[in-house]
Amino acid sequence: MLGNFTFCNPTKLYFGKDALSGLEEELPKYGKRVLLVYGGGSIKRNGIYDKVTAILKECGKEIFEDGGVMPNPTTEKLAEGVGRAKAAKADFILAVGGGSVCDYAKAVSVSVYCEEDPWEKYYLRFEEPSCKILPVGCVLTMVGTGSEMNGGSVITNHAQKLKIGKVFGPEVFPKFSVLDPEFTFTLPHYQMVAGFFDIMSHILEQYLSGEDDNTSDYLSEGLMRSLIHSSRIAVKDPQNYEARSNIMWTATWALNTLIACGKSTDWEVHMLGQAVGAHTDATHGMTLSAVSLPYYKHIMPYGLAKFKRFAVNVWGVDAAGKSDEQVANEGLSAMESWMKELGLAMNISQLGATEEMIPGLVESTLIMQGGYKVLTKEEIAEIFRASL
Amino acid sequence: MLGNFTFCNPTKLYFGKDALSGLEEELPKYGKRVLLVYGGGSIKRNGIYDKVTAILKECGKEIFEDGGVMPNPTTEKLAEGVGRAKAAKADFILAVGGGSVCDYAKAVSVSVYCEEDPWEKYYLRFEEPSCKILPVGCVLTMVGTGSEMNGGSVITNHAQKLKIGKVFGPEVFPKFSVLDPEFTFTLPHYQMVAGFFDIMSHILEQYLSGEDDNTSDYLSEGLMRSLIHSSRIAVKDPQNYEARSNIMWTATWALNTLIACGKSTDWEVHMLGQAVGAHTDATHGMTLSAVSLPYYKHIMPYGLAKFKRFAVNVWGVDAAGKSDEQVANEGLSAMESWMKELGLAMNISQLGATEEMIPGLVESTLIMQGGYKVLTKEEIAEIFRASL
Repeated sequence: MLGNFTFCNPTKLYFGKDALSGLEEELPKYGKRVLLVYGGGSIKRNGIYDKVTAILKECGKEIFEDGGVMPNPTTEKLAEGVGRAKAAKADFILAVGGGSVCDYAKAVSVSVYCEEDPWEKYYLRFEEPSCKILPVGCVLTMVGTGSEMNGGSVITNHAQKLKIGKVFGPEVFPKFSVLDPEFTFTLPHYQMVAGFFDIMSHILEQYLSGEDDNTSDYLSEGLMRSLIHSSRIAVKDPQNYEARSNIMWTATWALNTLIACGKSTDWEVHMLGQAVGAHTDATHGMTLSAVSLPYYKHIMPYGLAKFKRFAVNVWGVDAAGKSDEQVANEGLSAMESWMKELGLAMNISQLGATEEMIPGLVESTLIMQGGYKVLTKEEIAEIFRASL
Repeated sequence: MLGNFTFCNPTKLYFGKDALSGLEEELPKYGKRVLLVYGGGSIKRNGIYDKVTAILKECGKEIFEDGGVMPNPTTEKLAEGVGRAKAAKADFILAVGGGSVCDYAKAVSVSVYCEEDPWEKYYLRFEEPSCKILPVGCVLTMVGTGSEMNGGSVITNHAQKLKIGKVFGPEVFPKFSVLDPEFTFTLPHYQMVAGFFDIMSHILEQYLSGEDDNTSDYLSEGLMRSLIHSSRIAVKDPQNYEARSNIMWTATWALNTLIACGKSTDWEVHMLGQAVGAHTDATHGMTLSAVSLPYYKHIMPYGLAKFKRFAVNVWGVDAAGKSDEQVANEGLSAMESWMKELGLAMNISQLGATEEMIPGLVESTLIMQGGYKVLTKEEIAEIFRASL
């Protein structure tokens, strides 16, 4: 049954080969002083920085730079960005980068006028903003997180060994996002496939929860089938526009609240993966792939009917004459083959995690309530051990 | 390949059993003088009128009534509504009803301050509004048109024998819509199943177009599978909340621009059906069902690959050892069985159309460019003859 919910996603998307021209339509709606947020500088090498700043100047904007956003943005960097935004008296934040850059821009947007410690208020106490929020726009250069059309914002606190994702409401969603699939073509192969699995994990963690038979799950199946199909093309031919554009679009809808409407969701894989990320600083999508199969094998008996449906509707497993468990297992095997085909991290050892780290990883893993089995700490340790 | 596009759908949805409480959150955002738009009065019999007016009064609104919106709202009614809105100096339009009531409310919203004839400007010349637009909110009592989350507005001109759908931009979309599945439970069976086919037709007319292999089509397949599954339950058990809620949600996403993103669309079935509607005043969904099979059989050879995909991915046809044409035909046969199971109109004679009407029907049918075959007038006549 579809439970009660509200849906509101006001982000305007400009998608396709000339999507950047959307900036010319959007920028005049906002003030003159723009904080330009970006990552390690790849946008300077691939020409996107020049294109964006040229449009900003044409639109009469004053640019204040805030580069160097790291893959897992930290509380220290957030404090630095808040300082820069304040010094600049920024009217608007333009994020140019991947999910981390967009996530960070949102964190800055709700922190500039926040009178408390934003880490404590938003990430530890999960409170909503009560201050003025700076508007944010995004130019996306990496696909996976869905941050371009949601309120998600993951921040890492190294001192506390915590990586926490806060989901803000529509008032914090980007006002607009520019999605040009070609902007993702220069992404290194490792980052590209990590993004593909991040998308898959977003869909799976909403799909593999609940016993209901609702529209959200049918939409999830469609998104997964599209992703599997296109990722198989893109991994061999990363310049394939058709495949990359479909993956980009799938990523947006995988995490913009649609497929969670009216149903329960899990998110334990993200909790496991984020713990690995906090301890190893490994690429987000790879931390998810490394823990997924051990986790899903562990919970499968508690959600067998859905795992069977997953096998049949997503992987095309023929159920005739087989037990539910056999069908469900064949689905996970099909997923495993696909993951290997993509070259994903299949264990956390590959990411630098060791047996000694396990107690710390367990401590850093938040326990979610929406999956087929609410994990105990011992089960979490087991899953990490099976992921080594 | 996903073509270039923009996506923006700012409508806020309140969905579920207590969705009407969303009115209390939304109404304070708008002015005091509310034009309350509704249809033939069923909302007075089933209690929805009393619930809505009670909330309006609690929120301190002055109510100006505009009832009597007919299933195919006319240019005459539009002129009347504009007069009422002007006399009331309405700040806000609240539409309580099905798609026709929502469509009509949108037409009024862009016509009150329009200095030209709105029929000519919006429906014949397809121009965009250049005047002040009144904000609209919807409380949905019938499922099918998707009008609750889009800019669509179909108006009928009896003098000209034309029924034309204009698609307005996001500034005309409802600001919010209230979707309580239980509000649709009192709908007569005939209207209910007509709505189900309207949904199917919306998805099909976007899906059965183009050669691309993109995410939009995977989403369409998911929506169709959900609809087929739930409609089979609802037709036997109309009070089944799970089925009705999933159908309501599917209807919204079938026509809120998502599944058309980046691809071509057809809409010829709507043109054929709207011609039948203009000549017979038959229920919209039934005009679509009556012409669909003759139309799809006619164009199938021109889009065989997609019709085959439709058969396999939506209807579960086993393609092994069969020609593409055989598989495609089996898909249409499966759809025909489902249509009969629902009790849909299978020909236009059932709706009061006659052989003598065909020349007039042909004249009233707009020819679209996005299908697998751009029809000639002779082909349109043939399809109508096959639909008798």
